[in-house]
Amino acid sequence: MGKPIVGIMGPGENARPEENEMAFELGKAIAEQGWVVLTGGRSFGIMEAAMKGAHEANGLTVGILPADSAENASHDADIKILTGMGSGRNIINVLSSNILVVIGMAAGTASEVALGIKANKKIILLHQDEITIRFFKNIGTYKIVVANTIDETMRFIRDYLRVNPAHAPEGEEIL
Amino acid sequence: MGKPIVGIMGPGENARPEENEMAFELGKAIAEQGWVVLTGGRSFGIMEAAMKGAHEANGLTVGILPADSAENASHDADIKILTGMGSGRNIINVLSSNILVVIGMAAGTASEVALGIKANKKIILLHQDEITIRFFKNIGTYKIVVANTIDETMRFIRDYLRVNPAHAPEGEEIL
Amino acid sequence: MGKPIVGIMGPGENARPEENEMAFELGKAIAEQGWVVLTGGRSFGIMEAAMKGAHEANGLTVGILPADSAENASHDADIKILTGMGSGRNIINVLSSNILVVIGMAAGTASEVALGIKANKKIILLHQDEITIRFFKNIGTYKIVVANTIDETMRFIRDYLRVNPAHAPEGEEIL
Amino acid sequence: MGKPIVGIMGPGENARPEENEMAFELGKAIAEQGWVVLTGGRSFGIMEAAMKGAHEANGLTVGILPADSAENASHDADIKILTGMGSGRNIINVLSSNILVVIGMAAGTASEVALGIKANKKIILLHQDEITIRFFKNIGTYKIVVANTIDETMRFIRDYLRVNPAHAPEGEEIL
Repeated sequence: MGKPIVGIMGPGENARPEENEMAFELGKAIAEQGWVVLTGGRSFGIMEAAMKGAHEANGLTVGILPADSAENASHDADIKILTGMGSGRNIINVLSSNILVVIGMAAGTASEVALGIKANKKIILLHQDEITIRFFKNIGTYKIVVANTIDETMRFIRDYLRVNPAHAPEGEEIL
Repeated sequence: MGKPIVGIMGPGENARPEENEMAFELGKAIAEQGWVVLTGGRSFGIMEAAMKGAHEANGLTVGILPADSAENASHDADIKILTGMGSGRNIINVLSSNILVVIGMAAGTASEVALGIKANKKIILLHQDEITIRFFKNIGTYKIVVANTIDETMRFIRDYLRVNPAHAPEGEEIL
Repeated sequence: MGKPIVGIMGPGENARPEENEMAFELGKAIAEQGWVVLTGGRSFGIMEAAMKGAHEANGLTVGILPADSAENASHDADIKILTGMGSGRNIINVLSSNILVVIGMAAGTASEVALGIKANKKIILLHQDEITIRFFKNIGTYKIVVANTIDETMRFIRDYLRVNPAHAPEGEEIL
Repeated sequence: MGKPIVGIMGPGENARPEENEMAFELGKAIAEQGWVVLTGGRSFGIMEAAMKGAHEANGLTVGILPADSAENASHDADIKILTGMGSGRNIINVLSSNILVVIGMAAGTASEVALGIKANKKIILLHQDEITIRFFKNIGTYKIVVANTIDETMRFIRDYLRVNPAHAPEGEEIL
């Protein structure tokens, strides 16, 4: 039937230690629910941390890679989708996720939030600063949710997936 | 570490009954080895048959969809990758597979064989006619393998993956 | 040799009248310099207005369309690039432009600014609000330029293209 | 309004001298009609030869590049569309052309013919061998036209564009 896929988006090389820790905890919590963790698949930052967390709880991970070979893919990406599209792959990260959580911020990450709003996805901004929250609320009011803790994030995802089961036909979103 | 991913490519709506049966048997045989079955993800023809076969053996399936929503995805695609790229997604099918098997022939399928040759992938043409075999051998001699049965196909995949383990660094291909 | 290509990005259906007027004037001013105007190619908002302006000065226009047919393309797009990639085409808008000007703001537009920063492009934010400017400066300090008038924008583009001629090899950027 | 765009597809580095000569003559003949020549944009083989021919007749050329920078683009591509998608850009070559002419054959070229059939494009196989013609006729009977000379090719394009003007709404094709 397809398990729910939760996309965890955030910076690679420039992610901060405390953001990586949050990504690890979130990946683990998601895997404990039996859900799939999807990231940009590279061996850095939020991507790698979230997938390592998922593996801590024996979860399944999907990495959507920018490259056309697996050379720089994280060893923690179970399913490596090789696109050869560079940052063009960001749209695929967004479309393939039932719901998105964003930890940390950088240019690639910002493009994923914006593409997510455009694609009508629900997006949880986790532990973000005031400017970031205000900017994205200005362009996507009803799609943006703000959270400050893993617990709060998990509660929201659970509620959302209860009323919007994995890949249900569009137009049935309630939350 | 990443399990090997075997791409099974072939027609959708216009696949012949005997081709669908072969796809089902092949999907099942691949899943029995613990490998992942990757297809174009739609609810038709070779794609659906191969994934149904994989599920018969409790395997994991990945569908790379042309659409940006899951509406026309096969229920047998466990991991639905939504690209919104139409036939542009064919390159992703090819790049993400460690090795490709082709059953039946149509325009989309032919593009995948050609892109596979271009991307330096090993491609098994299963039960194909003489013109098809000669055409693809003309443009990709060393990448094309011809097989006529599921057993022959499985033997080749097994040999190939033994010397080219899943997503090993490039340039180490032996077979 | 290739004329310089200036990308003009902004909302479609939801663009404001005064933003469309600015896009028209800017498209005209760019065409008067003999430069090419590139947009998202649809028959709405900033895209259409910028290309209409370019045509007022007999300029050449390129539209990078999300669809796989020309049905909803603007009649003012001389060269229609059909991608069939939906919002996935935004990366192509960005990569193909020597420099980008952003008028108005919406989700798709925001993704283009973010992808532009990621791709190391110079981006002029024209007549944008404080939150937008601060957000993008936070994630792309050296790539973001702020302008409030067409004259200011044109002066900046001219200076930029003088030291970074069209499609020069990378690593030679000075401004 | 948009001038007709004729896509000329064929091998890069491995094109044969006589094929390059045909591409040059064809590019020139197309430009003499006032039509745009579209290619894969690289500085090799059929792509470069066709665009050089177009420039001989002061035509306009569009190159859809696989890379994300203009470094390996042909100097004869007036409009350089940078995709960063590798061979994934082949679908864009096909979709953006009103009609396609294929000179020489290689894996990338074959993928363009196949994607062209899939996208319902008219495709002229120029000076191709019997196996190639039979293979593509098997998968796309009504889309494939065979020609052996530049004159024959030009006559066909002219007839086709008369009844299928540039980017007319779909479903009106007559030829």
